Amino acid sequence: MRIIIFGAAGFLGKKLAISLLEEGSISLNGKAPQEIRELILFDKYLAEGLPVDARLSLVADDICSESSLRNLLEKPADVIFHLAAVVSGEAEKNFDLGMNVNLHATLQMLELCREFAYQPVFVFSSSCAAFGGELAKGVIQDGTAATPMSSYGMQKVVGELLVNDFSRRGFIDGRILRLPSIVVRGGKANAATTSFISGIIREPLQGERAQCPVDRSTRVWILSPRRMTQNFLHAAHLPAEKLGKNRILTMPGLTTTVDDMVNTLETMAGKEVAERIDWEPDEFIQSVVLTFATDFETKRADQLGFVKDASVREVIEIFMEDEMKA
Amino acid sequence: MRIIIFGAAGFLGKKLAISLLEEGSISLNGKAPQEIRELILFDKYLAEGLPVDARLSLVADDICSESSLRNLLEKPADVIFHLAAVVSGEAEKNFDLGMNVNLHATLQMLELCREFAYQPVFVFSSSCAAFGGELAKGVIQDGTAATPMSSYGMQKVVGELLVNDFSRRGFIDGRILRLPSIVVRGGKANAATTSFISGIIREPLQGERAQCPVDRSTRVWILSPRRMTQNFLHAAHLPAEKLGKNRILTMPGLTTTVDDMVNTLETMAGKEVAERIDWEPDEFIQSVVLTFATDFETKRADQLGFVKDASVREVIEIFMEDEMKA
Repeated sequence: MRIIIFGAAGFLGKKLAISLLEEGSISLNGKAPQEIRELILFDKYLAEGLPVDARLSLVADDICSESSLRNLLEKPADVIFHLAAVVSGEAEKNFDLGMNVNLHATLQMLELCREFAYQPVFVFSSSCAAFGGELAKGVIQDGTAATPMSSYGMQKVVGELLVNDFSRRGFIDGRILRLPSIVVRGGKANAATTSFISGIIREPLQGERAQCPVDRSTRVWILSPRRMTQNFLHAAHLPAEKLGKNRILTMPGLTTTVDDMVNTLETMAGKEVAERIDWEPDEFIQSVVLTFATDFETKRADQLGFVKDASVREVIEIFMEDEMKA
Repeated sequence: MRIIIFGAAGFLGKKLAISLLEEGSISLNGKAPQEIRELILFDKYLAEGLPVDARLSLVADDICSESSLRNLLEKPADVIFHLAAVVSGEAEKNFDLGMNVNLHATLQMLELCREFAYQPVFVFSSSCAAFGGELAKGVIQDGTAATPMSSYGMQKVVGELLVNDFSRRGFIDGRILRLPSIVVRGGKANAATTSFISGIIREPLQGERAQCPVDRSTRVWILSPRRMTQNFLHAAHLPAEKLGKNRILTMPGLTTTVDDMVNTLETMAGKEVAERIDWEPDEFIQSVVLTFATDFETKRADQLGFVKDASVREVIEIFMEDEMKA
């Protein structure tokens, strides 16, 4: 079995790669598990800190290059995980970059899969930034209209529609996962407008100060990296007939507030740690983040066996276990 | 004022052009009405049967040609009506053609508007083919998820998302209208899978036989060409602040059945006329049409003053008045 991860040098991409190596095999569409012989990690730079493993090959290249994608996709892949994206803040500031990576490169990938006609399982990472504005103020259900209020959100929803139709026509076998804010991310802050949600836990726990650009009362919709990695694998394993023609799945998650997260941090790590947060309102971040939906009912994903964290405490514990050991 | 209609040689495009010439002026965003000095009709072939009018210029060119679009859009237009599309049946059979015209040409148009930065009012013709499958079986409301089950529907919803985001960012001033099946169309049958809904009225009334590819019980969602033309003009007139950031409007219409339409035809024109229909089931047509949603609540469009027909009888009367005089 040959697997490709696009966006593999990112925080989630690397976790997914390690999980796949540990898993060793995947069972596709109800067939017997097949050994993973080749795992290709594609990103704009080489993924670092991965185990030495003969099954791995790392490719650093431009996802917007048609010839690079063609070279890579020409040889049949059994599963493609497409996690590569220009994140929300960056796509809002640099419209062309967001369009090129999030929309055009995704479409190019799908068109190449169609041309080569080997129908890979195609797991596409979308986002709850699909929902914004007036219509996102209520509880989002599986049948709620996507109303993105950011260019990132728009580009993700366009990707969803493409993956869904390419699946319906039999060019690929797509599974679209709408991710909550993934919290607590390890490493450094990124250009996602939701980056601070990880920062206000990660930095204080590591003895550093964090900036919080929004009010304490701000609601957020979160899922831990560990659970999301499980969900990516689960999506690849799910038989197509359980999904039918609608391949879009809003992932389960927790609705909480910045206040609740900081209070939980204080309970777990002490007042001194929780006081390492500087409250510095940022208009740009607020203009994007405060339009995101935060209340979800994810019946379809729940029924299909996708998982979430039990509590904010568990989300923080997972960070301490998975990221702070190193 | 300079106005461009893309898809102007089509049935609705021509009606819109004639209405604009009759109207003579348009009031944009609450400003005083301005005289229409130039009305450019773009299509792949020259529109026929239009009045001689110094304000008109006809362009027959390829909408997929970047240089053609560039030449046309370079000089600022005040209003652009984008009605050009590869219709549902054709887009399902010829995937590339549908992608090129419905998705890539629309995006190219929007990118050129962005580059030239004159922020035209941009009226985009979308479709109730946005809704299909399981989620389309209930009543479609303004907040219902678009779940297209045809490539045409997918391409239209992608266009909606693009027009909406390009409007949010101030590149254009978009208004997106989701059209019901436009019935009764004059002229000949076209490649739309819904073409028969017009055919079963038009052909019998003109002494010809019509084929009906679906059961009598088939539900349809319809609007007359006259009302839709009024709605296109209304969309251009509406001040942007009444629309806010969500520019998508599902047009009002009538839910009826093939049976009800044929019975109304019989009442109006006699048994002999209604018997000119041959009932010939067509699997391909059914596979697309029967996934379309047919029950709608169009609160937002109703409140904004968009109009519909009073009854199926009125829909047929409009055809007799507007199309059979000639």
